[in-house]
Amino acid sequence: MTEEMEALFEKLSAFYEARKFADLRMLLLDMEPTDIAAFMEENLDDKDQIRFFRLLPKELASDVFVEIDSDTQEHLIKSFSDTELKAVIDDMFLDDTVDIIEEMPANVVKRILASSTPENRKQLNELLEYPDDSAGSIMTTEFVALSANMTVKEAFDKIRKTGINSETIYTCYVTDGRKHLIGVATVKKLLLSQMTDVIKDIMDDSPITVDTLEDKEDVAMKLSKYDFLALPVIDKEGCIVGIVTVDDAVDVLQEEATEDIQKMAAILPTEKPYLKQSVWNIWRARIPWLLLLMVSATFTSMILSGYENKLALLPTGAVLYAFVPMLMDTAGNAGGQSSVTIIRSLALNEVEFKDIFRIIWKELRVSILLALTVAVVCFAKLMLIDRLYNNFEWNVAAIVSGVLFITIVMAKFVGCILPLIAKKCKLDPAVVASPFITTIVDALSLIIYCSIAIALLG
Amino acid sequence: MTEEMEALFEKLSAFYEARKFADLRMLLLDMEPTDIAAFMEENLDDKDQIRFFRLLPKELASDVFVEIDSDTQEHLIKSFSDTELKAVIDDMFLDDTVDIIEEMPANVVKRILASSTPENRKQLNELLEYPDDSAGSIMTTEFVALSANMTVKEAFDKIRKTGINSETIYTCYVTDGRKHLIGVATVKKLLLSQMTDVIKDIMDDSPITVDTLEDKEDVAMKLSKYDFLALPVIDKEGCIVGIVTVDDAVDVLQEEATEDIQKMAAILPTEKPYLKQSVWNIWRARIPWLLLLMVSATFTSMILSGYENKLALLPTGAVLYAFVPMLMDTAGNAGGQSSVTIIRSLALNEVEFKDIFRIIWKELRVSILLALTVAVVCFAKLMLIDRLYNNFEWNVAAIVSGVLFITIVMAKFVGCILPLIAKKCKLDPAVVASPFITTIVDALSLIIYCSIAIALLG
Repeated sequence: MTEEMEALFEKLSAFYEARKFADLRMLLLDMEPTDIAAFMEENLDDKDQIRFFRLLPKELASDVFVEIDSDTQEHLIKSFSDTELKAVIDDMFLDDTVDIIEEMPANVVKRILASSTPENRKQLNELLEYPDDSAGSIMTTEFVALSANMTVKEAFDKIRKTGINSETIYTCYVTDGRKHLIGVATVKKLLLSQMTDVIKDIMDDSPITVDTLEDKEDVAMKLSKYDFLALPVIDKEGCIVGIVTVDDAVDVLQEEATEDIQKMAAILPTEKPYLKQSVWNIWRARIPWLLLLMVSATFTSMILSGYENKLALLPTGAVLYAFVPMLMDTAGNAGGQSSVTIIRSLALNEVEFKDIFRIIWKELRVSILLALTVAVVCFAKLMLIDRLYNNFEWNVAAIVSGVLFITIVMAKFVGCILPLIAKKCKLDPAVVASPFITTIVDALSLIIYCSIAIALLG
Repeated sequence: MTEEMEALFEKLSAFYEARKFADLRMLLLDMEPTDIAAFMEENLDDKDQIRFFRLLPKELASDVFVEIDSDTQEHLIKSFSDTELKAVIDDMFLDDTVDIIEEMPANVVKRILASSTPENRKQLNELLEYPDDSAGSIMTTEFVALSANMTVKEAFDKIRKTGINSETIYTCYVTDGRKHLIGVATVKKLLLSQMTDVIKDIMDDSPITVDTLEDKEDVAMKLSKYDFLALPVIDKEGCIVGIVTVDDAVDVLQEEATEDIQKMAAILPTEKPYLKQSVWNIWRARIPWLLLLMVSATFTSMILSGYENKLALLPTGAVLYAFVPMLMDTAGNAGGQSSVTIIRSLALNEVEFKDIFRIIWKELRVSILLALTVAVVCFAKLMLIDRLYNNFEWNVAAIVSGVLFITIVMAKFVGCILPLIAKKCKLDPAVVASPFITTIVDALSLIIYCSIAIALLG
């Protein structure tokens, strides 16, 4: 938090505690809703939160409410009278109401729906039925609709009339009598046209659209690709049922990046911020992969045990053991570099499955260069440093470095193709990432290491 | 790529090859610039790219040019006549010109600057001087400025006059005679006001601003936090020097997420898409960490060698070796889960250094629960599965599981505090992530394992 914001929060606290409510309201009117929400969460206890909320200028209440975290929202709703709840709900955009409803227990949801107008209740129920990851689940049904025969002047009148209740007014959607989307007109275009121009002559009549069931990540990527402020959402009949706005798309992109990062780190994705999660929830998100990877490491134990008798017979057997962690870590890092690169490129639509041969060819060349560099440095390190504390000849150093070369090339091959195969099989590429690949690569490098060492030194 | 888009690309190719240029232009007019750019990159060779570009409707040329990848841009500029270059550059927004200039070799930059108007050249030179990661480097200087005494009607006239050359017209900036920013008025607000209202009465007079030198990631996070379409950039004197728009902020957030993912995977961050990078560039981004981590694994080799004589004396010495990879992998995964969680939370401003004790307390409880679960399952697995192929008693199983418990708690502690300490020391938390922590955690777990095993079994 910036110092400026801290000073502001202290001033708010002071006014609130001194009951200088007029001064408080003056201050609040100049603040952004999200900052007021942050103040309430950080500086007030349950009882003061509801008192403070009631002091908010009426035009700010809903905007602040939307920005508060869901635990506090739940607690506030439970303290609201029916009239208060209705006032807050009525001023909210429908997509925000949907977001809130999705986090609330059943009895609170019932109260929210009961407080909505019949028209809004119907739309809320429709929005709630869209699958969790779909365009439908993040869209809002409040937008400015124009008809093709309007003049620009009439369009502005329509915008003025419906604008206050629309999440964005800057992109207007032109529909025919049956709600089919036939064009798009931006306010910029309207402003730069003559008042007497007719909408159908100035509109863009081949708008980019998305389907209600399209994955919300694809929708967000599309919005960002075209630099739009909003995208219209179309049902099977070609009717416009809502719009997705850029602010929601930004949130989706941030969430998806977080989820991919979590999956790469062997964590089940969670939506709540870390400090708001309970210890049990964090445990639940982390334990499955930790257990699975621990159990799958049985393979490495089996491999090491299997070669044990033969390794023990070698005069340098114990020396060879000492380099197992180095080999396995390097192979794991090498594989992780490739898998993570491909996973992120897939997420950004920079590569597709059809690029698999180009990718393999590129990774092959990169991995040979990398493996060569690392193997040469490793050989030098073994001869110059490791021989200071361990007793072995150049042939051991050569075998370790040689195996390192092979494992790096192998790890990068596995690392680059597994995410692509996962994508092709409609699995999540991020899930097969680093930790999973590490297990495969560990097992393979051990087998290569032990069998080559025994063959050459035995 | 969608089937629809593929069909469209085929049609474009067909028209182009049949030299049906009128049909081609009709088709292009309905397309988005970024799709036309993708078509040129994927379907045309160098010679056809320049020919095709010359066929573009004049109003599309600059928009398409901005979306093309930098190699193709360079090649096109080299084929342009001075007049062509001037036409393209004149129609571009200054922040896009800056982005292009940053990727071009010196002689091309010279030509671009020579083709700009003196006024634009001056502004370009100023923009180019801002540090790479600053707000200044991603802002544009083209915005709508209003004065406080204008009426709404006069404001609309001003918007109409300057609008076509501004990247966004939807947020207008109110300045005094000396360019000091004194307020902000959105077009929505203007549309919902009376034509005779005066700007100073309807403007928001405490706008959120950013400094020219503020980190571009912080700027993007701010824009997303407040759900704005643009943020004004202010110099030391409080004068507005430019604006950052939401489309650029989205790009910054995506880039920063990619960079953090790369750093976590021990790759130096790169901006170019994977398939556009040369083999040497990929090598350069991956070799430093791969080498460093390989060399730092010397510690694990030293530790294993150091304990070797004592371990060899134990009747179960060889058995204990077999579980080293499992212990190290599990510790690495456990540490990675915590470090990655904290790194991402820091990036999203969900936690700060001052939360360190809350985080340690949370991670401690989570890690004890996780360690307990994993240790119990591990004990069962050792007794039931690993004894099938290896010969050891329950006491070995108990020691391995017990050490696993300790290493998981230790790994999670290291994993959660290192990123916080890095942040405090103004280092990049993502750089100390998974691979680096793995090395530390590997060494510590080995020491714990060997010393406990020798103490209890020796």
